[in-house]
Amino acid sequence: MTVEVISVGTELLMGSIVNTNAQFLAEQCALLGLSMYNQTVVGDNKERLSDAIRTGLGRADILILTGGLGPTEDDLTKETCAEVMGFPLVEDSHTKDRIREFFKNSIYKEIPANNWKQAVVPEGALVLDNDNGTAPGLILEKGEKRAILLPGPPNELIPLFEGQVKPYLQKLRPELIVSQMVKICGVGESQVEDRLLDLIDRQTNPTIATYAKTGEVHVRVTASAPTKEVADKLIRPVVKEIKKRLGTAVYSTREEETLEMAVVRLLKKYELTVATAESCTGGLVAGRIVNVPGSSEVFREGFVTYSNKAKRRHLDVSKSTIKKYGAVSKETAREMAVGGAFATDSDLCVAVTGLAGPDGGTEEKPVGLVYMACCMGDKVTVEKYQFKGNRNKIREQSVVRALDLVRRMVLESRE
Amino acid sequence: MTVEVISVGTELLMGSIVNTNAQFLAEQCALLGLSMYNQTVVGDNKERLSDAIRTGLGRADILILTGGLGPTEDDLTKETCAEVMGFPLVEDSHTKDRIREFFKNSIYKEIPANNWKQAVVPEGALVLDNDNGTAPGLILEKGEKRAILLPGPPNELIPLFEGQVKPYLQKLRPELIVSQMVKICGVGESQVEDRLLDLIDRQTNPTIATYAKTGEVHVRVTASAPTKEVADKLIRPVVKEIKKRLGTAVYSTREEETLEMAVVRLLKKYELTVATAESCTGGLVAGRIVNVPGSSEVFREGFVTYSNKAKRRHLDVSKSTIKKYGAVSKETAREMAVGGAFATDSDLCVAVTGLAGPDGGTEEKPVGLVYMACCMGDKVTVEKYQFKGNRNKIREQSVVRALDLVRRMVLESRE
Repeated sequence: MTVEVISVGTELLMGSIVNTNAQFLAEQCALLGLSMYNQTVVGDNKERLSDAIRTGLGRADILILTGGLGPTEDDLTKETCAEVMGFPLVEDSHTKDRIREFFKNSIYKEIPANNWKQAVVPEGALVLDNDNGTAPGLILEKGEKRAILLPGPPNELIPLFEGQVKPYLQKLRPELIVSQMVKICGVGESQVEDRLLDLIDRQTNPTIATYAKTGEVHVRVTASAPTKEVADKLIRPVVKEIKKRLGTAVYSTREEETLEMAVVRLLKKYELTVATAESCTGGLVAGRIVNVPGSSEVFREGFVTYSNKAKRRHLDVSKSTIKKYGAVSKETAREMAVGGAFATDSDLCVAVTGLAGPDGGTEEKPVGLVYMACCMGDKVTVEKYQFKGNRNKIREQSVVRALDLVRRMVLESRE
Repeated sequence: MTVEVISVGTELLMGSIVNTNAQFLAEQCALLGLSMYNQTVVGDNKERLSDAIRTGLGRADILILTGGLGPTEDDLTKETCAEVMGFPLVEDSHTKDRIREFFKNSIYKEIPANNWKQAVVPEGALVLDNDNGTAPGLILEKGEKRAILLPGPPNELIPLFEGQVKPYLQKLRPELIVSQMVKICGVGESQVEDRLLDLIDRQTNPTIATYAKTGEVHVRVTASAPTKEVADKLIRPVVKEIKKRLGTAVYSTREEETLEMAVVRLLKKYELTVATAESCTGGLVAGRIVNVPGSSEVFREGFVTYSNKAKRRHLDVSKSTIKKYGAVSKETAREMAVGGAFATDSDLCVAVTGLAGPDGGTEEKPVGLVYMACCMGDKVTVEKYQFKGNRNKIREQSVVRALDLVRRMVLESRE
């Protein structure tokens, strides 16, 4: 079964916004086992939109259209799609009631006249209630072809898709598609592929696909089966084998768990606290930890010690260490971590010091050189990295490795 | 003159990556005054790619293709485009030399045989040297139609476009398109539009367009003229009028200057230093400042005081203040800022404390409530915000407002 996405909106053609909806829908459709061969972006223009819909319906079984369902005259998606597919438009009293309800608690005294346009739907269409806006989602069925119309704002589109479109699409497929993610940190994509090559080549059900993220690799194992139980049975040994081959580099097998979530989970499990002492990452390691709701249980404080004076004052890095080895050195990293743990009474402290550039690099210490250290009780691990890329890229990679260093340190000591 | 973008890559159809290239190219083409009516995404499949190229060339004057120029057998863009447009492929000795040069300093002992495929080009094509990879950009011209082929990785595509494709496209247009950005913080998009409505409606050359970013609004003023001087003359009075109407809310009129860059520039100008004291933003304000190369002149240290104890220990917030008013209060924010400036000997200190959620909100102090304070000498400004959105959205908005608070504080005292 094939699916195509048509994104409608002049703002996409002007480059005012990034088309994250297309990425979301593509990923979801892949998860559902639907094949996508084309995506199109077209403006709020009747003729060109009609062309795109006709072409799409000619190629794919299912067409997902996003955007152009607003209340203004520019919004043409519903009208155009209904016309191309031959549906008359009728008023939907249920949607009318919902629009009235939506405006009840709003700042508007009166409902803008335009909005009643959104209560008109193609006759016989499935109407999907939208809890976050006034434009309902719509599903039009004609013979073997289907068009699914969704509003453009992601905070309306995503809940509509997850709550109503996904179950609808699942029912269309004879087989169930189940997938599991294996998230890896500290090993490059080509290395992961090397270690899994025979598995990737051999497997057809489940399939194995790798995705490179900044400093991470995600491996998705996807099975197609008549029931969830059968699919799980197909997936389980493969995930087990991947975990065996990659060892502690695997930080999670949960779709929604980020690296910082895994770190916080682990710290909570062992009732440990962590502090941060950052130079070139300038607070971003702490910022990632605080991303996690409830991180206050394991993270209480951190230092951004960008200057040498601050490193001395707050982390008790000795003047002679900085003088002898420099601020970017394994010795300074080590003292930052030890000093940070002491100053904050935390069980662990992770420290990062490096050259993010663009200036300040030398032959001996080039831009991208980053030292990080993690102190846990009496033990201190110091690591040296030479990252590539611009200032931001170097800092992003440092943040990921620093979080992972905390994770590995806890694992080594406790498991 | 019309342009279309064809993004080639199965990873886009699988939803593995977001199509940021399409957004970049769309924005750039709009800036160049080229009209874009369609964008297409297609996989690494010869037949479907041929169809997309044929359709694109039938509709637009210029086709920009991205991706599929790599060294593997899956990479088909060059071969397919040459075939559709009727160009034979020939070896390009200049590109061959460049590939040899590229691998000289790499970890590879031998150049992978695959890579020589990238030295083959359509006969007569303009070859655009790629300093960041082995695939050159290519421009194919046939009658009035043009195809521009660019590699997919953004760090290769962007420099190629800016350095070589942009000047090429500029030459094709009889009129020059010049634009200037006015960047605004602290005023919502609808308010900005209200204040500029008559200008936006009245102007046709230059045109005025607004773009909403997190916590910011960017206004682009674009003129079309035969020379840069004439364009500048058209733009200047409009930018002046916008600045007059929005006052100090305008933080920059430079395209490439971010809010943190404007803050660092201002601090450098007055030789001031700033420190940070963060609770709910957890280091992200410091992280944004450190984004700016050379920020070490104005930023030396910051605290992430997530726990109350840390607020007391490092920022000297009094126990009774936290007890009486709570950690999220204007009193605590004030003491954090004052204490942070004192502890670090900085001229300014900005402090943020708030409820980012999802839990912990009450009727009196709901999720999204954020206090921030900025201390400068004897003066302390405290501001209260009620942000909407999820945890990350609340924190992102807080970071922008905190940076802007520093900016306004300096401006008020010095200008």
